[in-house]
Amino acid sequence: MNVLIVYAHEEPKSFNGAMRDTAVRVLKEVGHTVEVSDLYAIQFNPVGGKQDFTALAEPAIFKYGVEQTKATEAGTFAADVAAEQEKLLRADLLIFQFPMWWFGLPAILKGWVDRVFAAGLTYGGGRWYSQGVFKGKRAMLSLTTGGGPTIYSPTGLNGEMDTLLFPIQHGMLYFLGFDVLPPFIAWSVARSSQEEREKYLRAYTDRLRNWRTSETIPFPPLEEYDETLQRKQAVN
Amino acid sequence: MNVLIVYAHEEPKSFNGAMRDTAVRVLKEVGHTVEVSDLYAIQFNPVGGKQDFTALAEPAIFKYGVEQTKATEAGTFAADVAAEQEKLLRADLLIFQFPMWWFGLPAILKGWVDRVFAAGLTYGGGRWYSQGVFKGKRAMLSLTTGGGPTIYSPTGLNGEMDTLLFPIQHGMLYFLGFDVLPPFIAWSVARSSQEEREKYLRAYTDRLRNWRTSETIPFPPLEEYDETLQRKQAVN
Repeated sequence: MNVLIVYAHEEPKSFNGAMRDTAVRVLKEVGHTVEVSDLYAIQFNPVGGKQDFTALAEPAIFKYGVEQTKATEAGTFAADVAAEQEKLLRADLLIFQFPMWWFGLPAILKGWVDRVFAAGLTYGGGRWYSQGVFKGKRAMLSLTTGGGPTIYSPTGLNGEMDTLLFPIQHGMLYFLGFDVLPPFIAWSVARSSQEEREKYLRAYTDRLRNWRTSETIPFPPLEEYDETLQRKQAVN
Repeated sequence: MNVLIVYAHEEPKSFNGAMRDTAVRVLKEVGHTVEVSDLYAIQFNPVGGKQDFTALAEPAIFKYGVEQTKATEAGTFAADVAAEQEKLLRADLLIFQFPMWWFGLPAILKGWVDRVFAAGLTYGGGRWYSQGVFKGKRAMLSLTTGGGPTIYSPTGLNGEMDTLLFPIQHGMLYFLGFDVLPPFIAWSVARSSQEEREKYLRAYTDRLRNWRTSETIPFPPLEEYDETLQRKQAVN
């Protein structure tokens, strides 16, 4: 199986770096092919726009989604975007490894999504959510936080972690059709001991060894929505 | 009063461009000073990291929050970051004008937050949420969407808009202390008629004229949380 780790930390000696190294090692040990997009190292440009394309289909007025769809047909994605799309398309497991910044993805990783998850190529024409292009493939967030778990509990000051990750797990990964594994969260690593960090890496190792069989987040399939895209039975 | 509009669209002829132009005109008409950070036009670099600083306090291992805090004391923010921080600090009203991409901010705007909302300068030492640095000031999202309002309803396929915006409105704006005005959302503008667009601009004009007195989103104040940062009374 092929695994793509999209890694967004500038400091190789960081705990995110250790998590990336652990994942590469463990996944290779079980026989997978592992690719890493080290976004800081490759100086990935996260700004979506005209430079995503070698030619514009409608230069008079720039419409990003239109250009992405046309570029999918014409093969006119810029080389940096096309290279990442090729990695994405061959991945059976996609991992985002990142420090949570402002309750979401660091911009360099958000922009990887903006540019690589292109209309036409990765969704469109009824291909989304449980009927998405990446149906049957899996994805997982692996992140570090500043705060501890209680501040992200349902009654915690920062809001519930599931809610904060919903735009990413549901809106980006499940949107493309991925089955989304529960996130692996290393809480408050800046304030953790060496022993706690080693414990996290062992727990992450276990998670990685079981990625093909672990239960995924039960987002509802398209069949549970009516023709106006409303959930047929309200589930509270 | 001073208004800062952070604008994230590459195409001046876009509806986002029309909304920005409307805001500048209306807010100047009522006597405000209006600044616009046109992120694509200034080629704002959204990648947070070492280049945010003219010198590193701890070069052996890069810790972003530590460097931001030290740079606040030492005045060592890079010129592009410092210029935006100055605009932010003098704003009485902060507006983000953007197309919703992947259920959040385009990367160029997310990175503006990552770099400009620096630890030490904009939060830290007990200054957050209702005791935040920007207490008494106001902020608002003004955005366009691809889908219509029903797909973002509580039972809609994409998830509820309030939930999707929570990491931004609560996690970024309220975190800094801003009172957050309800978002102004122009739904599915790519598929809207000229008449609908004009209606949106009129409605936006009304919203802007009333920004100082409109009701803001009732996020709970810090006093409603206990010493472990849990909400004192569960509100369901």
